[in-house]
Amino acid sequence: MRLIVPLQGVVQGRGGLFVGSLIPCCLFYFLQLYLKRRRSPPPDSDSTELPRTSSRSSLFTRGNSIGRVRVSSRAVPLAKPPDSPYYIGLERVKTDPYDRVSNRDGIIQLGLAESTLCFDLLQRWMSENLMDSMMHYSDDVDGGFDISSIAMYQPFEGLLEVRVAFADFMSRIMGGNVSFDPSNMVITAGGTPALEVLAFCLADHGNAFLIPSPYYPGFDRDIKFRTGIELIPVHCRSSDNFTVTVSALEQALNLARKRGIKVSGILFSNPSNPVGNILSRETLHAILSFAQEKNIHVISDEIFAGSVYGEDKEFVSMAEVAAASGDFDKSRVHIVYGLSKDLSLPGFRAGVIYSFHEDVLSAAKKLMRFSSMPVPVQRILISLLSDTRFIEEYMAAHRRRIRDKHFLFVEGLKQLGIPCAESGGGLYCWVDMSSLLTSYSEKGELELFEKLLSVAKINATPGTACYCIEPGWFRCCFTALADEDIPVIMERIKRLAESSTS
Amino acid sequence: MRLIVPLQGVVQGRGGLFVGSLIPCCLFYFLQLYLKRRRSPPPDSDSTELPRTSSRSSLFTRGNSIGRVRVSSRAVPLAKPPDSPYYIGLERVKTDPYDRVSNRDGIIQLGLAESTLCFDLLQRWMSENLMDSMMHYSDDVDGGFDISSIAMYQPFEGLLEVRVAFADFMSRIMGGNVSFDPSNMVITAGGTPALEVLAFCLADHGNAFLIPSPYYPGFDRDIKFRTGIELIPVHCRSSDNFTVTVSALEQALNLARKRGIKVSGILFSNPSNPVGNILSRETLHAILSFAQEKNIHVISDEIFAGSVYGEDKEFVSMAEVAAASGDFDKSRVHIVYGLSKDLSLPGFRAGVIYSFHEDVLSAAKKLMRFSSMPVPVQRILISLLSDTRFIEEYMAAHRRRIRDKHFLFVEGLKQLGIPCAESGGGLYCWVDMSSLLTSYSEKGELELFEKLLSVAKINATPGTACYCIEPGWFRCCFTALADEDIPVIMERIKRLAESSTS
Repeated sequence: MRLIVPLQGVVQGRGGLFVGSLIPCCLFYFLQLYLKRRRSPPPDSDSTELPRTSSRSSLFTRGNSIGRVRVSSRAVPLAKPPDSPYYIGLERVKTDPYDRVSNRDGIIQLGLAESTLCFDLLQRWMSENLMDSMMHYSDDVDGGFDISSIAMYQPFEGLLEVRVAFADFMSRIMGGNVSFDPSNMVITAGGTPALEVLAFCLADHGNAFLIPSPYYPGFDRDIKFRTGIELIPVHCRSSDNFTVTVSALEQALNLARKRGIKVSGILFSNPSNPVGNILSRETLHAILSFAQEKNIHVISDEIFAGSVYGEDKEFVSMAEVAAASGDFDKSRVHIVYGLSKDLSLPGFRAGVIYSFHEDVLSAAKKLMRFSSMPVPVQRILISLLSDTRFIEEYMAAHRRRIRDKHFLFVEGLKQLGIPCAESGGGLYCWVDMSSLLTSYSEKGELELFEKLLSVAKINATPGTACYCIEPGWFRCCFTALADEDIPVIMERIKRLAESSTS
Repeated sequence: MRLIVPLQGVVQGRGGLFVGSLIPCCLFYFLQLYLKRRRSPPPDSDSTELPRTSSRSSLFTRGNSIGRVRVSSRAVPLAKPPDSPYYIGLERVKTDPYDRVSNRDGIIQLGLAESTLCFDLLQRWMSENLMDSMMHYSDDVDGGFDISSIAMYQPFEGLLEVRVAFADFMSRIMGGNVSFDPSNMVITAGGTPALEVLAFCLADHGNAFLIPSPYYPGFDRDIKFRTGIELIPVHCRSSDNFTVTVSALEQALNLARKRGIKVSGILFSNPSNPVGNILSRETLHAILSFAQEKNIHVISDEIFAGSVYGEDKEFVSMAEVAAASGDFDKSRVHIVYGLSKDLSLPGFRAGVIYSFHEDVLSAAKKLMRFSSMPVPVQRILISLLSDTRFIEEYMAAHRRRIRDKHFLFVEGLKQLGIPCAESGGGLYCWVDMSSLLTSYSEKGELELFEKLLSVAKINATPGTACYCIEPGWFRCCFTALADEDIPVIMERIKRLAESSTS
């Protein structure tokens, strides 16, 4: 077939001009009209398709699918079962959870980063202080405590007292080298909404954040569910112990630009989740320099900051790096924190946005109408976080006990010939099970995940779920395990390994 | 100017065909190209505009606005001060709040729908039960309560016990004619996120909900802040006591369609906010029939269902109407409820989504990661809502005390010659202050709003903020007032009226 292009006519003289441009122009014109009609169906096509009649009962009987009302297109994927192995694993555990007394053959949970290591201390504190923390007595109230101090509306961003308590606590667990200003703080009902609200404020629909991978699988839901922001993995390798480099960031940014995607920021967790390594001051400085050069935001998720157990490991907050040098525009730095990990209180839904950007703080405060922390919880946390003697005792025990459990778990794996990445923080370790793979590929890894779940009855999160490009890595959370569970796990893995080789 | 349309040539013969179609076709073709180039700027324009240099400090010094990082375009309007008189009024009260002891000249708050009427009862219950409600003892735990029952992760949609307790409570306060199935329920951290999550699930960006006006000004933030859904007011009039009619809905729907907007549902509050009228069974039936005919959703905000005080008023839930007849596809019906109003516990952030649509429930459960109710709050509410003796006592007192306060407030206004709309529920009344307007217009109403705030020192919400088309109406919330405050308010309004006429 001969293609006639519009400008062909120009070089072919007058006759060519007509023949060369008329036909394709007309075709193009009517094609546009045709496509336009197809692309935008008449508004409310749902309802116009329905015959207008007053005898509705004949059309809409119970259970009749004709005319059944539809949910939004953005709700459709959310209504489906999860496809990430991370969530599949969590769901599977619920069907048959291990219990060392009542269900010794159940699935052992290594997929959820929660800690029960210091429940004895929390139990003691709550028994002694819970009531007083919530009951504020007032001279104006007859014969009892001031119910208005927990029942009434309070500023959605959190009471000043709770922000002061969080600021002190964060400074304390982050080594005391950084101070936090309560006026730069918005209290949220969990780290998850803190992250979503920040994302909403920093990037528009269709923009992206760079994110060093492997990364925590929950970020996909936190960021992508509602904000329309993309996450672009910046692949890190075992040879660097999965630490991000500026050249990898640069490469990912350039690739995104080529694809026409605007990158609005870098998101990362420190201590990193799932690897557990702690970013050095130099790495943080390099990330911030890169962000400054590209004029993008930095979101540092520091929710495991107080769960650092390595002997010679020092946690440094991005807030400290931003404040330490006058070279940086601090307003691009945003910290996410919460008490689900370091204080083992995920049930309390306690999170913080810490930002140096006034507009982000103003917008986040307004958005807190959707995720504000209930006042009774604020009251408990004001008391708990301000009890510095308890906090010192708790944090020392928390770190010591993670370290001990980590040692037990990693030693157990080592005896099976299974190594872990070097780590110094977090409630998990990053385990190299590549020796157990039948094929060194994503497929092989997912087969191992399935075998771990159904044969060994262990739920560990495969690297694929974390966008790791090297197959065979698994995240194993160990801080909700009793010491006596660890030999059980090792025995199960040993048997799986033996059956694979035989 | 002579317009040459492509098909003109057809009727003008061969010469006309060339002249008639060639020129506009070419123009159209190049216009398309031109517009396409203008519409999509090069990606990452922010960062490409910055000179690449390693000497960052010269470019980005502290406080230097060059290269200052920007927030998302959707955060920009949120970071600005509010422009709705509703929020302006609330902010102004904070600067100089009335206190009958310490600041008798301060601004009296009639803008916030909260109640302190039964704080004596709540105080008693909390003093006696708060501790036990949170402390679950377990045989497995040595010497104390089971901290895991409040500290650990729980299903984001709420524990089964809290959903059962909510279902029983809702059925009870809604007259016992309707039962709620806990499995159709998602517990949320407040009515506000319940509404936003529903909106997200039912409509897409650019779609709209019809909403009878005047409506509660907070809906604008609840729905529009993040979902991108429009609210189309369906104007109701004082002649119908501001009750919506099907013909008004039909008209608004047709108008929306003409504008090319897809209407996904109808949102309304019952008892209505700000008017306080209670929708009859017939009206609810008509709304649901209309929604069925148009195949759209119905969102019924029933957060004031237990605050009905009219002698002969009966509250009917949309859930009851949907369930009562086999004619309706129930899956289009969604109820929002919460404890901020009926139980006077806004500080607890307790809300519910009740839906008959499986996909909506599945999606909402996943979205609860952003707005789940903290477990300690769930524990308190399980005890509180299950204490049926207390709930009966509380609800009877709550209704009686609203009725008495309403009588005092409305009588006070009546003596000043200021009438109110007929109402039977809610923590407010809808006051016709048109006699105080200097001009019968929106401008006149806003002038009166400002005079009330700065001269009379009263914050009442003007109808404009509620999209009321008749000027002069104000919403006045009276349930946080002491009896002795009411003469103070009346005196202030009287003086304002006198100074206006003199």
